[in-house]
Amino acid sequence: MERVRLVHGNGGRFSHELTDRFILKYFTNDLLAPLHDGAQFPVTAGRMAFSTDSYVVQPAFFPGGNIGKLAVCGTVNDLAMNGAIPQYLSCGLILEEGLAFEELDEILRTMSEMAKAANVQIVTGDTKVVKKGEVDKIYINTAGIGMIPDGIDIGPHRVKAGLDIILSGAIGDHSIAVMGQRFGLDLSDSLTTDCAPLNKMVQAVLDKVGTQVALLRDPTRGGLGTVLKEIADQSQVGIKVEETDIPIHEEVQSVCNILGYDPLYLANEGKVVLIVEPSVTDEVLKILHSFEEGSEAVLIGKTLDKNIGKVGLQTAIGGVRLIDLLGEDQVPRIC
Amino acid sequence: MERVRLVHGNGGRFSHELTDRFILKYFTNDLLAPLHDGAQFPVTAGRMAFSTDSYVVQPAFFPGGNIGKLAVCGTVNDLAMNGAIPQYLSCGLILEEGLAFEELDEILRTMSEMAKAANVQIVTGDTKVVKKGEVDKIYINTAGIGMIPDGIDIGPHRVKAGLDIILSGAIGDHSIAVMGQRFGLDLSDSLTTDCAPLNKMVQAVLDKVGTQVALLRDPTRGGLGTVLKEIADQSQVGIKVEETDIPIHEEVQSVCNILGYDPLYLANEGKVVLIVEPSVTDEVLKILHSFEEGSEAVLIGKTLDKNIGKVGLQTAIGGVRLIDLLGEDQVPRIC
Repeated sequence: MERVRLVHGNGGRFSHELTDRFILKYFTNDLLAPLHDGAQFPVTAGRMAFSTDSYVVQPAFFPGGNIGKLAVCGTVNDLAMNGAIPQYLSCGLILEEGLAFEELDEILRTMSEMAKAANVQIVTGDTKVVKKGEVDKIYINTAGIGMIPDGIDIGPHRVKAGLDIILSGAIGDHSIAVMGQRFGLDLSDSLTTDCAPLNKMVQAVLDKVGTQVALLRDPTRGGLGTVLKEIADQSQVGIKVEETDIPIHEEVQSVCNILGYDPLYLANEGKVVLIVEPSVTDEVLKILHSFEEGSEAVLIGKTLDKNIGKVGLQTAIGGVRLIDLLGEDQVPRIC
Repeated sequence: MERVRLVHGNGGRFSHELTDRFILKYFTNDLLAPLHDGAQFPVTAGRMAFSTDSYVVQPAFFPGGNIGKLAVCGTVNDLAMNGAIPQYLSCGLILEEGLAFEELDEILRTMSEMAKAANVQIVTGDTKVVKKGEVDKIYINTAGIGMIPDGIDIGPHRVKAGLDIILSGAIGDHSIAVMGQRFGLDLSDSLTTDCAPLNKMVQAVLDKVGTQVALLRDPTRGGLGTVLKEIADQSQVGIKVEETDIPIHEEVQSVCNILGYDPLYLANEGKVVLIVEPSVTDEVLKILHSFEEGSEAVLIGKTLDKNIGKVGLQTAIGGVRLIDLLGEDQVPRIC
């Protein structure tokens, strides 16, 4: 089996070979083709969003995806959370000496498929190779840019009291799928990562009722609980959510019960929290339901003008639990 | 001594603490401040450049700099090589559990200083923490964007026969400084990395004679030799350079002689190769000489309409040596 060698990262002949055989095989487009020190392209005047994430998920392959899927969807989704239409991505690979070409190929193929699904182009990149033991198989950084349509203004400054909080679907699938793979748990085939590009669904919402959407956030690391608490803090509102309204798949809840995890703090890679004017809640839910990624979307709560900076979870048994930021980690290297 | 823990990367309370104490201490600006999933800013219509690099240099601290200096200057320079005015950077940190806060602080401080020197803003970022042994101390990815002024068109497609090849200074300093640190060689204090932001110097050239500049390339990994061979290949020209014209500091040459390295293939982090119309060569040299980073700039060769795809080095003893891409590595993890 052919494997990545240190010389594949030296910038010379072997780097060219790696680029030709793998990178250009999947990422071919007119902007990447010149292989200069960066990509050049025209932009129109307006507001741009720019975001980045490094991906270090372990293991690199898990039910429903791999690190390449995360790397494209994660950054696409971060752009979408700014109300932007994701357009161009960069790709920085850090490879461990000894990585099988076959695995690299599979990861890059997935990135290319996801880029197509999200309608973005990977236009510039960089590949480093480090010695065995200096990285765990493969880490990927993507950065991305996209333009924000006129009239769209998404951000914590837009959140005020009296808005509805919508969640696009069930929480915890990604964390449990990755953990199941990591620890060799015997989970059903249906438990897979929720990782998906959300930009088309978000765009459909913004196209219809964009001015009534105050905030978009994807509850990744830190989970839904952390995101809600951050919103309460940053936007200086109170938040009330109903525990029974938050969708959690049965098997995820079972694993959580057994292992003592709180699904509120598990990472998701294909979910979005939308804070919207109540007048458009029904329409937003209808749009979300028309997408597979949003088929389980529900209204889970409201922003309040009291209990500023606090998140109260109305529990199934009738009490109120205060939700704080995630403290000690549950699942490291989850994305 | 306080150290980075796994929980500093979990997206929750400890991530906030790390961000507040270190990231926001140095990278404060209006665009980063909202700490949303990305930065939003206005852009004007025109051509944009977008580039990325991951930095894995070992050791992370070396004479004249550290990985943070490389991470800012490297991406700033890649943008400058596109003729762009670098504007915004992203910063993706991958930290090893156990990294001393003191070292992290020093690296981020350096990034902030370099960003100021290069007149760019670090506007979005991400921090991951992995277990001890899953990364070697710290790896950094930066991506950057910048606008290309009207009338500037830099790229391999612009290179034709009969152009002059200018090198902005002596080669090999960066590689030898890093290697000296890595292997504990007893080198003089004056041998330091050449790492520096080149955008102001490049901009000064483009402001005066931009339309007569065909190509800009920084000879980083792979060195001057690889860059020249890539240009000959991509632009379908022949290249002739004079060995005696290529500046090499005496101590770098001595280390190369002892260890058997070829300075032509050593990485540089503060040098640029400019391919220009002969009519502006004198003016370009004069501009370069007015900058500290360009004080040793010289004309080293010409592009030819024969020996297409070949680079001939006229040697000191009167022969011609054909220069190929770097083959087997000399110095891994040099940037």
